[in-house]
Amino acid sequence: MNFSEQLSFLLEMDKLKSVYRKALVKADNNRFENSAEHSWHVALMANILAPYAEQPFDIHRVTLMLLIHDIVEIDAGDTFAFDEKAILEQQSEKEEQAATRIFGLLPPAQKDYYHSLWQEFEKAETPDAMFAKSMDRVLPLLQNMQNEGGSWARNNVTKQQVINRNKHLQDIAPTLWAYVLEQIDTATEKGWLKTA
Amino acid sequence: MNFSEQLSFLLEMDKLKSVYRKALVKADNNRFENSAEHSWHVALMANILAPYAEQPFDIHRVTLMLLIHDIVEIDAGDTFAFDEKAILEQQSEKEEQAATRIFGLLPPAQKDYYHSLWQEFEKAETPDAMFAKSMDRVLPLLQNMQNEGGSWARNNVTKQQVINRNKHLQDIAPTLWAYVLEQIDTATEKGWLKTA
Repeated sequence: MNFSEQLSFLLEMDKLKSVYRKALVKADNNRFENSAEHSWHVALMANILAPYAEQPFDIHRVTLMLLIHDIVEIDAGDTFAFDEKAILEQQSEKEEQAATRIFGLLPPAQKDYYHSLWQEFEKAETPDAMFAKSMDRVLPLLQNMQNEGGSWARNNVTKQQVINRNKHLQDIAPTLWAYVLEQIDTATEKGWLKTA
Repeated sequence: MNFSEQLSFLLEMDKLKSVYRKALVKADNNRFENSAEHSWHVALMANILAPYAEQPFDIHRVTLMLLIHDIVEIDAGDTFAFDEKAILEQQSEKEEQAATRIFGLLPPAQKDYYHSLWQEFEKAETPDAMFAKSMDRVLPLLQNMQNEGGSWARNNVTKQQVINRNKHLQDIAPTLWAYVLEQIDTATEKGWLKTA
């Protein structure tokens, strides 16, 4: 262990509080949400909704994945989930570089552990990562439904885009998927999601 | 399980993003920090600093305690750690009422689990709660040291107050306590902490 390295990492984390997303915080005058408070919300959400998962998974690994899933944005910034493919691919490269720098602040054993955990989340192939990723995708839907379509309505997002983004939930947590489909229909009826 | 209850709870959580603390976010133009992003930071910190704990503890319970430790502030507001005793006692009553209402949004089994976990954190008598509480107390020190004394300097906090608030760390994580004592001395020399 090397406390000065851990301290550098923890102080660097403060910067995630200045990375603003497209989501709005209705409870705070509709200001933009930052990635630190989002990470808190989704980590807590994963614990509350864990009973809906079809497959067994490790709730601590999921929680930790969600606590770190966005810290690469300190260097790479936030991109909107529904941006063009080319933008998202470029972002992916920037995030890999950011992960190397930011997790590299930690002592070697922790660096390897957290960097791998972040990569596992990004790939979304293990049960832990799939559940974590699904939570990260559902939370904005819950928020937008409370806020007249929120970031969807402001950015001309389509029904099909939201279905594609959340469809893995069908296998991961079918009860939640049924709810999500209902919400997408409601949002479309209200004009918050476009049909084409 | 009752999804509509869990959903109410999760949407209620958005309000913690509008509860502002005395701490400043240096990385974001020294605006006040909110309790949601603080909760994220301290939950991640507990994981990074877990190896320093003297006693074995359950890192998932600690993480979860820290994710929920401030949600009573949605109703009760934030109080400054160094406010007068009478104010802090009154706050404690308000927080108990808030816990009953807010955890009461959850289905019965989760309500009981999370409410008890929050009470355990507040009492700080178990190894899990003691470690979690110590993290919550050390993080503002790390932030203030990066920011010319931050909330200490702005609120005339004394060296002795900060020692009293952190002294349990001596048993919980002696290496961290040694570091904290050095920092308190530095802060006092620089005039960020008052001597009386």
